[in-house]
Amino acid sequence: MLMQNYARVGLGFKCGKGSVLWDLNGEDYIDFASGIGVCSLGHAHKKLAKTISKQAHTLLHTSNIYKIKPQEELADKISRLLGSPYYLFFANSGAEANECAIKLARKYGNSFENKKYEIITLGNSFHGRTIATLKLTGQEKFHPNDFAPYPDAFKFFNSIDEIIENIGENTVAVMVELVQGEGGINPLKKEEIQKLAKVLKEKNLLFITDEVQCGIYRTGEFATSKLYDVEPDIITFAKGLGGGVAIGACASRQDIFKPGDHGSTFGGNFLASSAGICVLNELEKMKKTGKLDITIAKFTKKLDNIVDLFPDIFEKRVGLGLMQGLVLKDPQNLSKIFNKALEHRVLVLKSGKNTVRFLPPLNINKKEIKQGFKRLEMAISDL
Amino acid sequence: MLMQNYARVGLGFKCGKGSVLWDLNGEDYIDFASGIGVCSLGHAHKKLAKTISKQAHTLLHTSNIYKIKPQEELADKISRLLGSPYYLFFANSGAEANECAIKLARKYGNSFENKKYEIITLGNSFHGRTIATLKLTGQEKFHPNDFAPYPDAFKFFNSIDEIIENIGENTVAVMVELVQGEGGINPLKKEEIQKLAKVLKEKNLLFITDEVQCGIYRTGEFATSKLYDVEPDIITFAKGLGGGVAIGACASRQDIFKPGDHGSTFGGNFLASSAGICVLNELEKMKKTGKLDITIAKFTKKLDNIVDLFPDIFEKRVGLGLMQGLVLKDPQNLSKIFNKALEHRVLVLKSGKNTVRFLPPLNINKKEIKQGFKRLEMAISDL
Repeated sequence: MLMQNYARVGLGFKCGKGSVLWDLNGEDYIDFASGIGVCSLGHAHKKLAKTISKQAHTLLHTSNIYKIKPQEELADKISRLLGSPYYLFFANSGAEANECAIKLARKYGNSFENKKYEIITLGNSFHGRTIATLKLTGQEKFHPNDFAPYPDAFKFFNSIDEIIENIGENTVAVMVELVQGEGGINPLKKEEIQKLAKVLKEKNLLFITDEVQCGIYRTGEFATSKLYDVEPDIITFAKGLGGGVAIGACASRQDIFKPGDHGSTFGGNFLASSAGICVLNELEKMKKTGKLDITIAKFTKKLDNIVDLFPDIFEKRVGLGLMQGLVLKDPQNLSKIFNKALEHRVLVLKSGKNTVRFLPPLNINKKEIKQGFKRLEMAISDL
Repeated sequence: MLMQNYARVGLGFKCGKGSVLWDLNGEDYIDFASGIGVCSLGHAHKKLAKTISKQAHTLLHTSNIYKIKPQEELADKISRLLGSPYYLFFANSGAEANECAIKLARKYGNSFENKKYEIITLGNSFHGRTIATLKLTGQEKFHPNDFAPYPDAFKFFNSIDEIIENIGENTVAVMVELVQGEGGINPLKKEEIQKLAKVLKEKNLLFITDEVQCGIYRTGEFATSKLYDVEPDIITFAKGLGGGVAIGACASRQDIFKPGDHGSTFGGNFLASSAGICVLNELEKMKKTGKLDITIAKFTKKLDNIVDLFPDIFEKRVGLGLMQGLVLKDPQNLSKIFNKALEHRVLVLKSGKNTVRFLPPLNINKKEIKQGFKRLEMAISDL
């Protein structure tokens, strides 16, 4: 039996193709969720499947004691896509990537005459499910007394201005999701982020972006920090990077660890790294050919259309690229729309208390978009 | 570029088959390490490769919002192999499996009139690389001031008797690796473990075994706790379970979480769960047919032979099943043997300060064992 830690719906899938999933009864669903932004190339993507299959028939895993060529290649590719040199560590999830960022920041904090160790995040943030990343998460409900004691020296404030005001003598880093994904879809303001980055740079403190959900072309650029014209000291990635294979990555402008400071048994193994390379190659191509931007424009237009069609239900569209939300006027409609969408066979996600979240595969095609929105319209009409 | 967090050797592999790996120059190596106990079926195992390939061409991942049939199957299989009902949560690594165990224990601790939250481990233990699991790890060198502050309420003592003496009013659980793998290969004493389990049961506290390295048939039984005739309240697994695919599992006799208490984006997805089922099916067959026990006997005999051949170098053999160590008389020989073995093309691991560690694939064949030990003999003769 499984633990009851998820509030699961009674639906399961057996196979997929592109942005379509089939349930156990053979009914098709349009996937506007991609496994919470994981299946960036959709389902059963031919090249990704072939890459994974080849690796499974050749070599899945060796220890990180030895050199792992695809891991080096993936690191170089990420560094190149970021446009400046970054040092990479590979983990198995977003939480683990953020754990790496915490360790890097704390170790960096030792370089000051008086050790700095405090990390500040935003009140509405989400950074993971481990003991440390729960406390790093600004939303109080994620670090209840149930799992205490938590590590100290994580603080959170409700705005970037408040964060800047509260940078203290122990503060070593500020970590933000440039587009928050769990407590609502909330793109932070560009001028505020640039101000924050500047303040941190002047103080020699670290600016960390958690791009676990918003990175890997999700918002239209490889890294959302590119859209914001900032160069974070540390960036974390995960969800979309493996296209369905578990992987996390932490990129740092400084090589802070010494051998033995950190490690992962599985992290960056042949399977995960090869999948990551394939995903990035495909997404880079989609970006370069303009295909991704066309898809984003199409999807956005359809979302705007939904807001226009149902002005009593939706307040507005929020988001960037293919990380979008429709904010509800009445939060009670959130579960209703989620369920009605399921009934009409289109998969959407919830975010926060009042936002319908959309994280479709980045290669979703015209037909799938059309079909999905047709179903969504019917679902909302059926409320 | 990669971070310098690993002390890597300058060797990398391109492919494998069974317990043989080939480096980038085409030289063959006998693998007595299996990626630190990960590749339990060796490399490029036909059925596992086929399973992974099929899943990649069908469906890699959906969110845990939906039912995931292979995840349910894997949970049921683990529960059946444990011989009594356990509730399962799937994560992506051993560290994440242990984070789940910490959260379960702490939540369970709330059921007492005065909340209990302290978890005790052994001084020589290793439980992971996240902030919380570093502190849970008894070896002081893994939680240096560099990464502080750590969460409180993790204590460690150097013997089971000391642990029992120090169970206090705040203690909610004791967690041990039944065979320690990182600070030397150290199987704990059966009678001590049974005593500990009994004491904890009497006090309604949790007995947790970390079988991340020693579980999944590594010591000859599905769970090492079976060898010890104990039924832990919580057991964590990882390394060998996916055969090279990242996976972690936390099994609990009580269903402690409520929906929302814990989660993982990737954990237990179609890819990881299908790989886990395939690995367990194969290993269960090997156990049932007696093949695994024959392999263990052969490998053990060869290790004893090495101790007999080089009485000046080795003090003794330690370990259980295919988790074995050769303890050196002179710790300075550890790196020398590791390197000489590499030179003679057989892969071994280090453990603690003075133990050569062996974690071969569980399906290593006669020929590979013979060839590997021939090379090891030459390597040691060449010291």
